[in-house]
Amino acid sequence: MNEMPKRFGARINLRKGHVDMTHGSGGRAMAQLIEELFVRHFDNELLSQSNDQAAFQPPSGRMVMSTDGHVVTPLFFPGGDIGSLSVHGTINDVAMSGAKPLYLSAGFILEEGFPLADLEKIVKSMAAASREANVPIVTGDTKVVEKGKGDGVFITTTGVGVIPDGIQISGDLAKPGDAILVSGHIGDHGVALMSKRDNLEFETEVASDSAALHGLVAAMIDEVPDGIHCLRDPTRGGLAATLNEIASQSGVGMHLQAADIPIRNDVAAACELLGLDPLYVANEGKLIAICAPEVAERLRDAMHKHPLGTNAAVIGTVNDDEHGFITMMTEFGGSRVVDWLAGEQLPRIC
Amino acid sequence: MNEMPKRFGARINLRKGHVDMTHGSGGRAMAQLIEELFVRHFDNELLSQSNDQAAFQPPSGRMVMSTDGHVVTPLFFPGGDIGSLSVHGTINDVAMSGAKPLYLSAGFILEEGFPLADLEKIVKSMAAASREANVPIVTGDTKVVEKGKGDGVFITTTGVGVIPDGIQISGDLAKPGDAILVSGHIGDHGVALMSKRDNLEFETEVASDSAALHGLVAAMIDEVPDGIHCLRDPTRGGLAATLNEIASQSGVGMHLQAADIPIRNDVAAACELLGLDPLYVANEGKLIAICAPEVAERLRDAMHKHPLGTNAAVIGTVNDDEHGFITMMTEFGGSRVVDWLAGEQLPRIC
Repeated sequence: MNEMPKRFGARINLRKGHVDMTHGSGGRAMAQLIEELFVRHFDNELLSQSNDQAAFQPPSGRMVMSTDGHVVTPLFFPGGDIGSLSVHGTINDVAMSGAKPLYLSAGFILEEGFPLADLEKIVKSMAAASREANVPIVTGDTKVVEKGKGDGVFITTTGVGVIPDGIQISGDLAKPGDAILVSGHIGDHGVALMSKRDNLEFETEVASDSAALHGLVAAMIDEVPDGIHCLRDPTRGGLAATLNEIASQSGVGMHLQAADIPIRNDVAAACELLGLDPLYVANEGKLIAICAPEVAERLRDAMHKHPLGTNAAVIGTVNDDEHGFITMMTEFGGSRVVDWLAGEQLPRIC
Repeated sequence: MNEMPKRFGARINLRKGHVDMTHGSGGRAMAQLIEELFVRHFDNELLSQSNDQAAFQPPSGRMVMSTDGHVVTPLFFPGGDIGSLSVHGTINDVAMSGAKPLYLSAGFILEEGFPLADLEKIVKSMAAASREANVPIVTGDTKVVEKGKGDGVFITTTGVGVIPDGIQISGDLAKPGDAILVSGHIGDHGVALMSKRDNLEFETEVASDSAALHGLVAAMIDEVPDGIHCLRDPTRGGLAATLNEIASQSGVGMHLQAADIPIRNDVAAACELLGLDPLYVANEGKLIAICAPEVAERLRDAMHKHPLGTNAAVIGTVNDDEHGFITMMTEFGGSRVVDWLAGEQLPRIC
């Protein structure tokens, strides 16, 4: 963040004001927006240093860095908004290496005319998500583009974290015989979002599962320090895309049991209605774990004890297939291929 | 970056193709874009791990993290483009703490319909800037928004680096009596950009000064390990905004000598023409250094020896003024206040 002088005369009007081009100019209006909005809510010592970068002493260990742009539409949806999502999304990408997330940065691209009240709502929600996860937003940047050259607000967050000694988790470590687990119900985020899209609104009680998963990951590693080979959060493209990614990276195939994949009735019904396959619908608070078969039950039981893993289930096994095919036994006993998503299912889901 | 399967059938058409929504869907088209464009050009071992995060072993020391969104228009300008700018900008923000930049992440927000040939040009330019600076792009993300909801391409880069032991450089450390230096001619970037804006095109030979300054910073610290108190790159809002930021952060005033501030005749003439004050025009390859008076000459001489500091000059002194006023003796011997930029000078300059 840039510098914030201590006095500006009138406070910025966060109730009725709008983003204008001066908020991106490097001058007094920008400094005021940063001080009275971002620094106030993200409140932490590193950010308040007011340099263009944050300096910190990391614990020793291998470090991890991950970045994620958020362009979700609508900006506010059942179970969250672009602010909380941008915190959870990047914390999760860091955590999927087994790392403890330490710090976040946030880059805002604002569209001229965007209501400051909405921006404050988003910033408050980011601040709350960051506090709850105990991962502070320590540096940031704000740019403003002309009306019609953006879409309200885009947020790119980057996270850094440290991997505990001895942990080796990566998408290329799945081995034939390994068990495949998912931490809970799939498809909630995508369905919650679709229910609020302008052209699609339909009645459902489904809320996004958006959540920070690093606590669950820490609990899993605590209980099963050896034997977790891969972790990944099935966001865009859903369970199907993520499993195809891992299969391709590890050079293995997979076989799933449809009956074992947790899915809410509401989500299944909505997917039926919309003609979507829930395997391809985005999640924002779920993870896939691939582990040695001998620790699978212990891992599942450990997940069950965590609030974000109460519905965890073993859903399949890794097999030896150099073509990387993923097959699934359907609930009717047939077999189908779970391919990559070829076209586009739900744009701007995160 | 997400995973990239090894075979897709036909290669992506980088010569005549356009970004479409499937490139952001999490499916095959996105994986192909990542593999055939980003991973190919950014080519490095960490990125090729294909996880959603990059893991690395940092050298010991305090770490630094900085982020910067890039929304510059036009995307291509004399002396650079949004790609090289997004690498230089974040490297510089990291380097201004005295740190050695280690790694970058890149988050792309693409507008549907953007020509893939232009995207490749930008990606190549980023790759070249990153290689030249020896700071690899180790992780990234790509999102696509509908036509009319973005502006071609926005790039948010984040950098991490390590501060050498014993170095303490921060915007709040300027002291009365300190010398103020600038590393070269001011205003080049802003003028180069303005000369290419649709509604303004005028004839000038001025090119952007966009450059990575970490080599210059290392040379400065090498020569003067003690006594450099603040470093900052005067980007948006130019020299004036940056000095006001530091003055406010450190609780000091400053006095400048206009005659000592290096500025090209072309830039001065263009500013005259456009009614701009060059003190407020953006730079992308310059830094301001504030140091103890006894090392000022030695620091300036060290800067002169580096290709990016050949025109470095001492331009003023820090004084004891709790109101944080910046004054300047003009070339005609008068005195003026160099205030914060109140409105907006040049939108979307970086």
